[in-house]
Amino acid sequence: MSCDFMALATPGVQGLHPYEAGKPVEELERELGISNIIKLASNENPLGPSAMAMAAVESALSESTRYPDSNGFGLKRALRQYYGLAADQLTLGNGSNDVLELITRAFLNPDDEVVFSEYAFAVYPILTQACSAKAVITPARDYGHNLQAMAEAISDKTRLLFIANPNNPTGTALMREELVAFLDSVPQTVIVVLDEAYTEYVESADFPDGLELLPQYPNLIVTRTFSKAWGLAGLRVGFAAANPEITDLLNRVRQPFNVSHLALAAAEAVLSDHDYLKRSVDLNRDGMQQLEEGLKLQGLGFIPSYGNFVTVDVARPAQPVFEALLHEGVIVRPLAPYRMPQHLRISIGLPEENDRFLRALRQVLAC
Amino acid sequence: MSCDFMALATPGVQGLHPYEAGKPVEELERELGISNIIKLASNENPLGPSAMAMAAVESALSESTRYPDSNGFGLKRALRQYYGLAADQLTLGNGSNDVLELITRAFLNPDDEVVFSEYAFAVYPILTQACSAKAVITPARDYGHNLQAMAEAISDKTRLLFIANPNNPTGTALMREELVAFLDSVPQTVIVVLDEAYTEYVESADFPDGLELLPQYPNLIVTRTFSKAWGLAGLRVGFAAANPEITDLLNRVRQPFNVSHLALAAAEAVLSDHDYLKRSVDLNRDGMQQLEEGLKLQGLGFIPSYGNFVTVDVARPAQPVFEALLHEGVIVRPLAPYRMPQHLRISIGLPEENDRFLRALRQVLAC
Repeated sequence: MSCDFMALATPGVQGLHPYEAGKPVEELERELGISNIIKLASNENPLGPSAMAMAAVESALSESTRYPDSNGFGLKRALRQYYGLAADQLTLGNGSNDVLELITRAFLNPDDEVVFSEYAFAVYPILTQACSAKAVITPARDYGHNLQAMAEAISDKTRLLFIANPNNPTGTALMREELVAFLDSVPQTVIVVLDEAYTEYVESADFPDGLELLPQYPNLIVTRTFSKAWGLAGLRVGFAAANPEITDLLNRVRQPFNVSHLALAAAEAVLSDHDYLKRSVDLNRDGMQQLEEGLKLQGLGFIPSYGNFVTVDVARPAQPVFEALLHEGVIVRPLAPYRMPQHLRISIGLPEENDRFLRALRQVLAC
Repeated sequence: MSCDFMALATPGVQGLHPYEAGKPVEELERELGISNIIKLASNENPLGPSAMAMAAVESALSESTRYPDSNGFGLKRALRQYYGLAADQLTLGNGSNDVLELITRAFLNPDDEVVFSEYAFAVYPILTQACSAKAVITPARDYGHNLQAMAEAISDKTRLLFIANPNNPTGTALMREELVAFLDSVPQTVIVVLDEAYTEYVESADFPDGLELLPQYPNLIVTRTFSKAWGLAGLRVGFAAANPEITDLLNRVRQPFNVSHLALAAAEAVLSDHDYLKRSVDLNRDGMQQLEEGLKLQGLGFIPSYGNFVTVDVARPAQPVFEALLHEGVIVRPLAPYRMPQHLRISIGLPEENDRFLRALRQVLAC
């Protein structure tokens, strides 16, 4: 190569390591030449998609040559009705990853500081780095957010602060009282992003609903996704809710057709499928209990989780365990990239998938 | 609002005006309470989607709870076979808008300069502004790119240069000889983006294929879309082809699941639907002739176009003509945002749509 293109990239991109996705089933099939694989690696909904959502996609297929509605009128109307939000509070995204990125692009100049916790979702450092901004990572407390440490990390240069509630990959959650006290302490010039990708799974009465907090905290942005309990990870749709001024800024950066017409149709339809959401949450509750009991029987520690996954301490280097499980046709997520080298994250599956994982794990750990 | 959030945004976003999409049919129905509307406003394929692509989407529906393959294995394999490109030259995007954005984010620091032409695609200034970079806009020649002016606009601060070939919204095209001479003159430290969204429609033997130029120009990035001749605008899929080093940088910035699993499946399938592409191009050729003849009969000038649209000089302010056409149920695109206040851009439609537009235009201009 006659030119050093790396040297032409922005400082952030020069140091950027992209997100590593959970291994797709087809990829493992190609690599190992095995079949009958189960994937418990990406916190996906094991129920299969909502029939109402899929019917909406089929109805929209004939319109595939047309650009999507750039303003997402139908989905925003459904979100207004479901969540009681106004259209001028909503930013639609190609998954919540997309709205998280819009937030960083709207507000981060090079060298601005972004506060988030150790063990928090891997997308926060990636997006921070992509903007050539500076990550300020606070130590965790019991694998969860230490809000006191986060408050103390705020400086004059802090522009954004990310909180995942519940957090992925650890499953920890912050309750209403401590979150509100923290929000009260944050200067309004610091935008607080409350990432609630897993909120639908949480059944504790003390768990906060970020959307209800929006009126009190104009510097708060809440992000949600249709990829988890709503079961639409493949279609890519999520949203941010915030005050109208912030929403205007996010929509300026948004690509005009960032959400496909099929994703818009599916998300609008699934919001009416109350039965699907209930079955998803019920299945998750039962599967969590099944996994916790099975792990206890094997004498393994795990982090109590509010999400649709549980993170297990295998008490030895987890990478070889992960690889041995692959050979058993079970894909889970090793957490070495999160500096948790003895942990594996297991997504809650169908009862038979959870059982198969537990048996495979017992066999692998016995070797 | 107790805090001025606008002041917290980046300098670029503070001055950013987002892209204005063509008016969707449903929006006009709501606004005017009329039906039987035709939309010739967004350069969409009037043929309706490929049956092979739609069958692939239907087959993939049951996998909607799973994240898409982050690496796009299947689509990249199909692109390799169709275009003779290597996987490490490919960056998949949520439409080509997405890969254009990835390019700006990988390479643009605040105050870097970006060269593009007057009347070039509106997304270039938006993406430049979003990165707080500086647009250097060169005067057009006959509504097309003036390559000499563009070469002269390159400075030590120039990082990117955009060329649309054919150009939207003017339909002009650069031929191989002049493009190659220009590329020879550009320093390798300037990344040249050749946006070939409309390339499939061009039948001139002198028209260049950017993909064939890649081996000679390591600083060249070619972008393509499935939204036009391939008829998948609603699903959002496009790609960039470049040398592996640039491709690595673009993929660092790419969201891991930026292309939905349905878009991946549809694009992979449509590449095998040679009949669909041929029918699209044939329909466009005939429709272009129909529109050109109809416009000549009305004594109207237009810019000779290589795309799937034609830009007409209505010889009076075009905005009232656009609005009168809306009341006739015909949506076209006024070009005042491109500083072409007397021009309307008309996408080639089905024969009966082209005819209806011509009749409506005659009626409106007679008033």
